[in-house]
Amino acid sequence: MIQGLQSIAFENSPYIVESASVVGKKEGEGPLGSMFDMVEENDLFGEDTWEAAESTMQKQACVLALGKAHMEAGEIRYLFGGDLLRQGVATSMGVEELNIPMFGLYGACSTSGEAIALASMSVAAGYGDNMLAVTSSHFGSAEKEFRFPLGYANQRPLSAHWTVTGSGAFVVGTKRSHVRVTGITVGKIVDYGLKDSQNMGACMAPAACDTILRNLEDFGRTPDDYNRIVTGDLGYVGQSILFDLMRGKNVDIKKNHMDCGMTIYDQKTQDTHAGGSGCGCAAVTLSSYILPKLARGEWKRILFVPTGALMSTVSFNEGESVPGIAHGIVLEHC
Amino acid sequence: MIQGLQSIAFENSPYIVESASVVGKKEGEGPLGSMFDMVEENDLFGEDTWEAAESTMQKQACVLALGKAHMEAGEIRYLFGGDLLRQGVATSMGVEELNIPMFGLYGACSTSGEAIALASMSVAAGYGDNMLAVTSSHFGSAEKEFRFPLGYANQRPLSAHWTVTGSGAFVVGTKRSHVRVTGITVGKIVDYGLKDSQNMGACMAPAACDTILRNLEDFGRTPDDYNRIVTGDLGYVGQSILFDLMRGKNVDIKKNHMDCGMTIYDQKTQDTHAGGSGCGCAAVTLSSYILPKLARGEWKRILFVPTGALMSTVSFNEGESVPGIAHGIVLEHC
Repeated sequence: MIQGLQSIAFENSPYIVESASVVGKKEGEGPLGSMFDMVEENDLFGEDTWEAAESTMQKQACVLALGKAHMEAGEIRYLFGGDLLRQGVATSMGVEELNIPMFGLYGACSTSGEAIALASMSVAAGYGDNMLAVTSSHFGSAEKEFRFPLGYANQRPLSAHWTVTGSGAFVVGTKRSHVRVTGITVGKIVDYGLKDSQNMGACMAPAACDTILRNLEDFGRTPDDYNRIVTGDLGYVGQSILFDLMRGKNVDIKKNHMDCGMTIYDQKTQDTHAGGSGCGCAAVTLSSYILPKLARGEWKRILFVPTGALMSTVSFNEGESVPGIAHGIVLEHC
Repeated sequence: MIQGLQSIAFENSPYIVESASVVGKKEGEGPLGSMFDMVEENDLFGEDTWEAAESTMQKQACVLALGKAHMEAGEIRYLFGGDLLRQGVATSMGVEELNIPMFGLYGACSTSGEAIALASMSVAAGYGDNMLAVTSSHFGSAEKEFRFPLGYANQRPLSAHWTVTGSGAFVVGTKRSHVRVTGITVGKIVDYGLKDSQNMGACMAPAACDTILRNLEDFGRTPDDYNRIVTGDLGYVGQSILFDLMRGKNVDIKKNHMDCGMTIYDQKTQDTHAGGSGCGCAAVTLSSYILPKLARGEWKRILFVPTGALMSTVSFNEGESVPGIAHGIVLEHC
């Protein structure tokens, strides 16, 4: 069960029973557009505020995932969820109506990994047949939370990310599907002392490197044992730093690395600078693009490593650095 | 293992191996003053900002708990932690140096229950011999986060709570002690539509009621099966509402109810209005006052129910209600 220093190898690996992705207009216009379960043309999702929009989007993702799994909310034993907003209000207000006992999480953009890890740990331990893992982010609410309200129309540096408007929900359970969570590697906080919150790829790359190396060591694997090593939202800047850091450890992941933040938008036409980011970025890419490939057997085994930058406007303004964290999830075709 | 609708009864109940409490000056002057492991006379804990002070306090609580347990940080497999600040920065910056793989949590003032629940679930499942659960709150950082900076010297209504400056850390593990976590009841979000963030006792009482009733039903118990039913920080206002709600369900917990927010300060002399609150309130009261009574066998079994109010300044200003959540932890002398 315990695998190496930071990992768990599940004896009875839980399944990703079903999942759902709900995104905004811009994501719908990107390369993965046709793969999402639902694209909302109005980014307010029928609400009055960005925060309420994010909550509604997250609830829609949960309801869709449950529907695809032919389950009622009452069949889910525990929900693990989080978002980027202060005090996780998008999740609190989003999942409230589902009336499922819940654990609120915060792992910045690594939260989808954290939620799937805890859901898998709970299913594998026999604490229930079905858990729900959900995360979300919204461009409007995230810009307001971390940078400037959209109305300011501020300029963004090229190293900045574009927060994905999207929510991914995952039913993790004992019911057979074609994708299993066979192991997890829980990440540590890694701090290289970087202080530029507009260059989150650089802040998160060291954590991604740490978790990937730890996963390979804990499970006795090489990068070739994975069809893809998928980071969450390092983007173009973070990816090149990750490659440099890995090269320093004599590990080459160049040929099978993929980053959700570089996959979800077309950098040339969508003006998204360093790439997509946010709790929703890795979650909706996993649900719409990665899980189907695993289910079809195109990929046999991947390492999913969503990455988070740990900061707030207060910590940033007080001169604190921006440490990173990344959690690793091993997903296998079955 | 699964117990009723929302609970888990552990087959191999984990132990609270050790714990530690670190508090500020005002808490040290209160009724529990002599019971805390450490009282810091300067609420800045030697730092320049309230946020850094909270992080330092949280780190001190972790280091103290590890020291009392004669453990190195490397012996802890996973850390479960959270605080009240936006994006949980007090925890990120606080536990970073410990270098323990970590899960960041947000459950408002219920986070100590959430952390101990997940730590216990992980130990009982065999995912590691020792986990660390930690939470903190700080009067200075919380007032700034949720209300006004202290320098404004604003007036507070009598229904307002006084956020506890304190951090409690708990080593949950397989090593024998005199207190075990025998079960948990995971809470749901309960929303009675209240919108007054200066009356959090009223906002949280319905969630406390829901979790207590669910716990009694799931385990087939009556209030008499617990020496105490301990809520986190309902305070004087919330307690009377809880009693009313319970009476409506024909359950009387008056004679064995205790609230940490009403225990930690002397309301008459310390001008703390409705009582103490914050992630640290229930945590330091549990560590300093409740666990010793359980260890000595004065109490045989208690239900610990920290309560959280789910809100942010943004959700409040946008007119959202303040729902509550409460997690139940069954602690027994052994």
